[in-house]
Amino acid sequence: MEENKLFKQIAFIKEIDKLKYIKRKTKLFNSDRNENDAEHSWHLAVMAIVLAEHSNESIDILKVIKMVLIHDIVEIDAGDTFIYDTQKSHTNTDKERIAANRIFGLLPKEQANELIAIWEEFEAGETNEAKFAKAMDRLEPLLQNAYNNGGTWEEFDVKYNAVYNKQKVIQNGSDSLWNFAENLIDESVEKGILKKG
Amino acid sequence: MEENKLFKQIAFIKEIDKLKYIKRKTKLFNSDRNENDAEHSWHLAVMAIVLAEHSNESIDILKVIKMVLIHDIVEIDAGDTFIYDTQKSHTNTDKERIAANRIFGLLPKEQANELIAIWEEFEAGETNEAKFAKAMDRLEPLLQNAYNNGGTWEEFDVKYNAVYNKQKVIQNGSDSLWNFAENLIDESVEKGILKKG
Repeated sequence: MEENKLFKQIAFIKEIDKLKYIKRKTKLFNSDRNENDAEHSWHLAVMAIVLAEHSNESIDILKVIKMVLIHDIVEIDAGDTFIYDTQKSHTNTDKERIAANRIFGLLPKEQANELIAIWEEFEAGETNEAKFAKAMDRLEPLLQNAYNNGGTWEEFDVKYNAVYNKQKVIQNGSDSLWNFAENLIDESVEKGILKKG
Repeated sequence: MEENKLFKQIAFIKEIDKLKYIKRKTKLFNSDRNENDAEHSWHLAVMAIVLAEHSNESIDILKVIKMVLIHDIVEIDAGDTFIYDTQKSHTNTDKERIAANRIFGLLPKEQANELIAIWEEFEAGETNEAKFAKAMDRLEPLLQNAYNNGGTWEEFDVKYNAVYNKQKVIQNGSDSLWNFAENLIDESVEKGILKKG
């Protein structure tokens, strides 16, 4: 075992602790406390394990799990972007790419390249694994908002159309989860916790 | 797709959100904030991915990741037990087993059985995967304490022998990580942040 390699891995492990400080806009279930990126990433990974059978296409679940575990690490440098932000695009910003190179670059070369490639694959959203990982990333805040009496929607005045359009990405990964999500959105409108127009 | 099955999976996904409220004794790096079980589980999963090559034996990394992601879910009902608690044993308590049956039991039968079996395998600590997963579970708080000027050791008056004996479990999973851990423990003694005797 090359000692230098292990030291690089430990440096990465220490650095990513900072993900626990990156606050998301969404709140925990039945709570006013914002979720942080580490908790969010953990939740998506367990969701991927539990919901894998709903994927439209056959998927390498290990790759999906890796994707969701690391997909937000760039936010340590680049910060969280609210998915309903109308000013700032969420994906593939230069800032995020620089962050990926710096943070994953703490690892030994080969591992850095592997994780950067997995992150890029997630961002591109074109492979079966990326589509399913993105479905997880959308479904979690939908559940949080729908079961928190509107949560973020209410707080940031997000309307039906915006939610529907963002959530529709779930269908790329899973028809049955999209069917569930669509019903949940409709129910939210009926309950008056998500407004049309 | 059986709708009832998906509803059960969603019920489980909502329930495990509570892991984000279970506070551990250890603190985040360079911080006074206690880590929670969801953050901890996320960190172990990424550590397992990054450190897999250090395992003494060949391992099914997907199983290791599943283990560390779910290993603390029972604490939603059973609470966190401090590993240096001298009154209460950490592992395999009846309370934890009842918790496993209730929480994983929210899932469809087959999945519940799979995750309970993975949790039991982790607790038993006998397979290569369980040994490596347990090494992750010990290494993370060691890093936190050693890099937090003694952290939990200082706060709860934990001495060298207790740390050494608890950490030695790392060797079952990885000789090279144990070598690293032993050096870190020795350095902590030299720095005066871990006391002998």
